[in-house]
Amino acid sequence: KPSSSSRASAGPDAAVAPAPEMPQREVARALAEQAVASLGPRLLPSAVPDDVAEFRNGAGNAVGSLDVRCGAPGSSIDFMMQSSLHCKVPNGAIDITSILVFLNATTDAPHFLLELIQGSPTSIVVVLDLLPRKDLALHPDYLQKYYENTQVDKQRAKIEELPQARPYRSPSLFVRSACSPTAIMVSIDCGQGGEGTLEEIVSERLATVAKEVLQIWLDCCADSIAEMDAIERDCLVERDQIVRSKSIEVDLTANLPRMFDPDVSSRVISEIRKAFGVQES
Amino acid sequence: KPSSSSRASAGPDAAVAPAPEMPQREVARALAEQAVASLGPRLLPSAVPDDVAEFRNGAGNAVGSLDVRCGAPGSSIDFMMQSSLHCKVPNGAIDITSILVFLNATTDAPHFLLELIQGSPTSIVVVLDLLPRKDLALHPDYLQKYYENTQVDKQRAKIEELPQARPYRSPSLFVRSACSPTAIMVSIDCGQGGEGTLEEIVSERLATVAKEVLQIWLDCCADSIAEMDAIERDCLVERDQIVRSKSIEVDLTANLPRMFDPDVSSRVISEIRKAFGVQES
Repeated sequence: KPSSSSRASAGPDAAVAPAPEMPQREVARALAEQAVASLGPRLLPSAVPDDVAEFRNGAGNAVGSLDVRCGAPGSSIDFMMQSSLHCKVPNGAIDITSILVFLNATTDAPHFLLELIQGSPTSIVVVLDLLPRKDLALHPDYLQKYYENTQVDKQRAKIEELPQARPYRSPSLFVRSACSPTAIMVSIDCGQGGEGTLEEIVSERLATVAKEVLQIWLDCCADSIAEMDAIERDCLVERDQIVRSKSIEVDLTANLPRMFDPDVSSRVISEIRKAFGVQES
Repeated sequence: KPSSSSRASAGPDAAVAPAPEMPQREVARALAEQAVASLGPRLLPSAVPDDVAEFRNGAGNAVGSLDVRCGAPGSSIDFMMQSSLHCKVPNGAIDITSILVFLNATTDAPHFLLELIQGSPTSIVVVLDLLPRKDLALHPDYLQKYYENTQVDKQRAKIEELPQARPYRSPSLFVRSACSPTAIMVSIDCGQGGEGTLEEIVSERLATVAKEVLQIWLDCCADSIAEMDAIERDCLVERDQIVRSKSIEVDLTANLPRMFDPDVSSRVISEIRKAFGVQES
């Protein structure tokens, strides 16, 4: 299988530069390696077509990549998805990187979610969470097991104590509702001239916290198996399905068509829907 | 029925001064009047014994009041509870005021909750929410009806835009989980010499926002009736019960015994349990 760069240079859009190196991509790459090393054979090889693995738009201002690895049969992994978008805009560029590892219905343990959205060289939005799969107010035992006992809230505090961090409120109330009470949802703004400060925060503090949250997830969630009766499992599956459909609706189907030509974005969205197991609404 | 002051002056603890007037009490009083005026005959008369309606501790450093009015039969109101605590501490005083209006199982509409916790003359913690009664991630229609369509999130923004406001994270992950994504949970800290600024914020901005959130609740929740099948109602009742038990555990049973003699706090807690319809755990 050719590497991304050789594939890109052979394509018709070879003129479009690849997404620039930046600390947020380095963080995502390190996390993906950490997950892959730990999950090992529980992840099947990458399963997206070449023109989705890397995609560009005709105007030459946007480039993206998507990788989806399904869980091996018999494992609790549903899929791991990594995506990266880079889009030039009149005053700079927008860069979005995300890593999701979703579990299947053999367990009710939380999913892993990291999303980094950078609209300028001096500010970044971070969403990092163990995404709950049950109603936490109805299931205090679940809250205790995955959120209190794991002390994941300490990781949130490490980011929020940064003087440059402010709460990030997703405009979608659904996204806010779907996240856990320990979710890191912050906007880190280093102000004019703060490029170096932001790079340092992302490569150090954020990289460390993201790695630790992922390690908590790998240790406490990825292997978890839950005994459930049929009613509990049905409820879990229904809730998962709603969260997946809504996240796609809010996130990708909103962003991709703004950045890429319709054929490109619909091809990419269709692969994401396939991984999420949700139909077009 | 005697007024609070004549009842207090007649008691054995007449030496203890009544809780001082302060803007947070004025806000709570105005809200209670607004609720009573709107709910009218749907609220039965006050139903707590005199020694719970107003209570003091032997050492003379703490005074509190509790009022509970049950909903009239056939109404959707379960109860309205107002409480106020004032406790002198070595460097000042702690003042806590709260108003809850809880609905019964004829509806799944959110409860109303306001809690103000002031540990110094220059700072206050505000918790103001329409407390959801369903899992918002599983019920996007509920989220839309009570939280999106009512635009209650705009009220949150009015408080959070204050430069003195910082997010307040309850140390209890359960409390955070029980609140809605539009909950106002902030600490407003006006810093040294900021007494006047805080009073102004509480009497003006906070008073206005609290009044508007209560009005949204009165208009959209208090009268709401929901068609539910038996399974839905059982789930609602179970969730309500867990939220009520946990809130009492986290909040009052933690605070009251630290401020009041055991016989006083257990008498008050027992009235609160009665209103909440939960047994000692």
